[in-house]
This record gives sequence, C-alpha cells and structure tokens, in this order.
Amino acid sequence: MIDLLIEKIQKTGAPIVVGLDPMLKFIPEQILAAAYGQYGETLKGAAEAVWRYNQGIVDAICDLVPAVKPQIAMYEQFGVEGLIAFQKTVNYCREKGLVVIGDIKRGDIGSTSEAYAAAHLGKVKVGSRQYAAFDEDFATVNPYMGSDSVTPFLNVCRTENKGIFVLVKTSNPSSGEFQDRLMDGRPLYELVGEKVAEWGSACMGSSYSQVGAVVGATYPEQGKVLRKLMPKAYILVPGYGAQGGRGADLVHFFNEDGLGAIVNSSRGIIAAWQQEKYAVFGAAHYAEASRQAVLDMREDIAGALAKR
Amino acid sequence: MIDLLIEKIQKTGAPIVVGLDPMLKFIPEQILAAAYGQYGETLKGAAEAVWRYNQGIVDAICDLVPAVKPQIAMYEQFGVEGLIAFQKTVNYCREKGLVVIGDIKRGDIGSTSEAYAAAHLGKVKVGSRQYAAFDEDFATVNPYMGSDSVTPFLNVCRTENKGIFVLVKTSNPSSGEFQDRLMDGRPLYELVGEKVAEWGSACMGSSYSQVGAVVGATYPEQGKVLRKLMPKAYILVPGYGAQGGRGADLVHFFNEDGLGAIVNSSRGIIAAWQQEKYAVFGAAHYAEASRQAVLDMREDIAGALAKR
Repeated sequence: MIDLLIEKIQKTGAPIVVGLDPMLKFIPEQILAAAYGQYGETLKGAAEAVWRYNQGIVDAICDLVPAVKPQIAMYEQFGVEGLIAFQKTVNYCREKGLVVIGDIKRGDIGSTSEAYAAAHLGKVKVGSRQYAAFDEDFATVNPYMGSDSVTPFLNVCRTENKGIFVLVKTSNPSSGEFQDRLMDGRPLYELVGEKVAEWGSACMGSSYSQVGAVVGATYPEQGKVLRKLMPKAYILVPGYGAQGGRGADLVHFFNEDGLGAIVNSSRGIIAAWQQEKYAVFGAAHYAEASRQAVLDMREDIAGALAKR
Repeated sequence: MIDLLIEKIQKTGAPIVVGLDPMLKFIPEQILAAAYGQYGETLKGAAEAVWRYNQGIVDAICDLVPAVKPQIAMYEQFGVEGLIAFQKTVNYCREKGLVVIGDIKRGDIGSTSEAYAAAHLGKVKVGSRQYAAFDEDFATVNPYMGSDSVTPFLNVCRTENKGIFVLVKTSNPSSGEFQDRLMDGRPLYELVGEKVAEWGSACMGSSYSQVGAVVGATYPEQGKVLRKLMPKAYILVPGYGAQGGRGADLVHFFNEDGLGAIVNSSRGIIAAWQQEKYAVFGAAHYAEASRQAVLDMREDIAGALAKR
C-alpha cells in the first residue's frame, strides 16, 4: 500500500493528505438545512450533512491529492449514524481512487489490537465467511502499550498489503509532556522512532516501509532528527495550517529523494470557505474553495522544497 | 459517577468489573446458530450473536457485580453492525443498574478528544438539540499525547458526572517497552501516575476522584508504588485470570479503607463455560457458568484482602 501511496504522490505532485474531520460548524447552511429537512435535527441528520459535505469536497479534490484522512472521532460523536457516514466516506474515497488513511489512533493488548486491526485494515471471520468492516488503506496507531499492541497491525499490513502510521511526536501543544521526557539522555519520541524503524524493517514496500510515523509539523527540529532515525518510514505530518505549521517547517520531514513525507491539512482545506482568503467562493462554492486551498498548499510545499 | 461506582462495590461486596469482550469463539453454538439462522453468516449475524450472548451473561451477573466493561474493539471489528450491538449492550447494562466502563482507549489532540469525549461520555450538539451517542459512565483514555488530549475528558467528567481511567501501566507483556523506561531515574508510568493524581484533584467525588488509572494485575510491584502515588485514584486492574494475575497479586492495588481498586476479568468470566472447572454447566448454561466464575472471583479477592 505504501507503494501505491508513493505512486499517487508522484503522479499528483502533491505530498498532501486532506483531513476529512468534519465539524458541523464547517458545514455550509444549505447542506445542514437539506439534511435536517430530511431527517430532522437528529444524529442521522447530522451524519447525513457530514456525508454530503464530504462528498462535495472529495469530488472537488480527488484529482489533486493522493490521499484523504478521515478522523473517526468526528464521526463517532454522532454514534452509529456517524459511523455509517464514516464508512460511506471511506468507500466513496476509495472508489474515487484516493488512498484512505483512517485516523483512528487505536492500540490495545494483543488480542484486542487484533480486533482493531481486523476492523480497520483486515478481515473478520464470521462462520465460514470473511468480511472487511471499515477497510481503510492505512490506520494510525498509538504505541504507548508497546510492541505486542502494534504486532497485530503489522501482521495485517503484511497479509493484506495495508499500512500504519505510528504516533511518534504528535502535533499538539502538550505532546512533549511525556514524549519529550529524557531517558538516558534521549527523548521518548526517539525511542519510539527507533521502534518504528525496527517494526517497519519487517514490512517493507519497494523503497519505503508499510510502517510510517506521525510527527507534527509544529516540531520541525524533532522532525529533522526523526527523519534520520527512521529513513524508510513515511512520515505523516499533521499540524500544517490551522495548527501553526508552515511550508518552510516541512522540508526536514522529507528525504533527499523528495519523498518520505505526506503533509495533512484538515480544516485549512475542508473549511477553507470560512477563511477570509477564500471568502470570495462563498458557502455555495465551499468545495471549490477547498480545491483552491489544496492548490495553494501544493505550491507552498513545492516552493519550500525547491528552496532547500 | 465514582461515588455511584463505590456505592455499588460496597453493596455487592465485589470490587469486580466483568469485561464484555465477546469473541465469536466464546459464544455457544446454539446462539451462533440462531443468529446465523436469522441473518446469515454476516456482520449482522455476528453482531446479533454477540448481543444475545451478552444479554445472557448480563442477566446472570447483574445482581453480583457493580460494573461491566465492554471492550469496543470486539464490536468495532464487525463494523457498524457491531457498534449497534455495543450500543445495545451499553444501554441494557445501564437499564440493569450496572455501571458501564467503555474500554475505548481513545486520546487525540484537543478538538478531536473533545469529539471522543462527547461520543462516549458527553453530548453532541445537532442544531438546537443535544444527543448522547454511546453514553457510557466511564471511559478508558490513552495519555501518550499529554494533558491537552485528556482535558476534554476531564471537562466532560465535571459537567456530566462521568469518569475516566487513564492508562498508566498496562497488563500486557510488552507494556514495559516504553512505560518502564527511566526518566531521571523514574519510570514513565510513575510520571503518568503523577499526572493522573494532578488531573484527578480537579475532578473529585466525595472520597475518590472521577479520574482513575489502569494498572495491570500482572504488575503487582508497580501497583504498590502507584497506589501511593495516586491515593485518590480508583485503579482499574485488568489482567486477572486469563492474563495471569491472581487474587494475592491484587492486595497492593487497594487502599487501607478496602477501596481504591476494581478488578476486571473478561474471558475468565464470559467464557467460563469453556474452562474445565466450569464444564459441568455445559454450553446451554454458559451464563450460569459465568455467574459461578464471578462468585469464585469474589471469594478469591475477599480471601486475599482478608489475609493482608
């Protein structure tokens, strides 16, 4: 799956993943009104609005980017109805040729991680049959519980040609609270990064591993160190845009081959129409605003990479 | 909510939570056959089997224990249908007067954790209305991303009178890989434990905090240290039974007042009918086997506590 992701990144020239993290406040009034008109101000109504909104964005950007990253929490908050919208979104994106990174940040003891890995990347057995429940292409994984919580995901990566991104150094302000603590003079995120390299060596694609890492754009210095520590790991970089990361911060996440990183932007793209910069599009053309925001982001990153 | 949990623990004399982590291989043939007969060997059929199986167990144990802990991964693997079974299980257990601890191990950047907290403990706004999606009483939370990933859960604990259990030292074999690493001579789990105490001090019930901790029964020595470090935190102790923890290992997790810990057993109870010890019940009476396993576990723990 990492090979397919790289192929699509090269084809689009956009090392960009669009975070499909829909909050109701991002959704234009005409979509909310239509969904509530049909189902009322209910969980089903909210889920319907989310789904229609996503569809518009996906249609507008699917030729420009290699991948999307739906954040499952934004769907889970609407319960079962929300998860139906999540599943429809995953399926729709795959139909449109996008690689889907499920931002699920799961991780548990072995037998439980097995169930999560089956739920999101693999298949579950029911009697004599097998089913893929959510069937994303990649998933994000939380490493706090150690190797045996990650191993079931690695197994599924191998058998199903899927991939994972392990949280190493996250983009949020308090990520350093535990991740930066020094152990024998080295921060925890480096130890996790080393493990990512180790886990990844057993799940190689043709040039990069199926096992990538999450390192926030908001921490470029740490990104520089981690880039060297995990040379074969693709880095999924959140925190661009709304969280404060800029194109110039991103260069250290890439390898010399111009590959090795894919940058996420969520609200910076999906809620672009609410920014002054894209206000001219208006609510009716929110998806075109998203498209323009992708084009601008692609240019920002390409410019920063050209300058290094 | 912690006050209610303690009240129920005292009333039942059982500091026990039953882990509702249904795997299809635990479910008696007659239940599988009936569910598959109705819906086929489908995700819906599997979810129906899980739900019927849970119902039987809950009916058999609900007067004996204060709480249950459904592990959401075991439902999530069956996709949306599985999550419908999860929701039915949560609702049914609450109707039966059980405290429900959602074992979800979520945690993300602030705005995303807000969505998870709303999904599982709080309410989500849809237009002018509010809905509780899954509506558990407690949830487990992964702390790897630091305070700002936990804060949204704390806020919901305060506004909705709910609680959380933060992963501190987990029960699995490789939990030490990161959690035991020394920082300034102290293991990471102690630093997380200190944070739990700090977070908890702002969310107090009448004697214990709404913010508890997960510490595995398989690590009694670490439990002893953590017990002192977080005197007001209830400790949720997984790893009893199938994972190797015994009653004698548990005493250190309790405070002098006989409170402060609640011990989880999952397959040791829900799949008791498959053990030689309870084979006499047979598949038809699987739920009675679970009831007997709870009684035996209660005795094991009470005996160990009496001896200390």
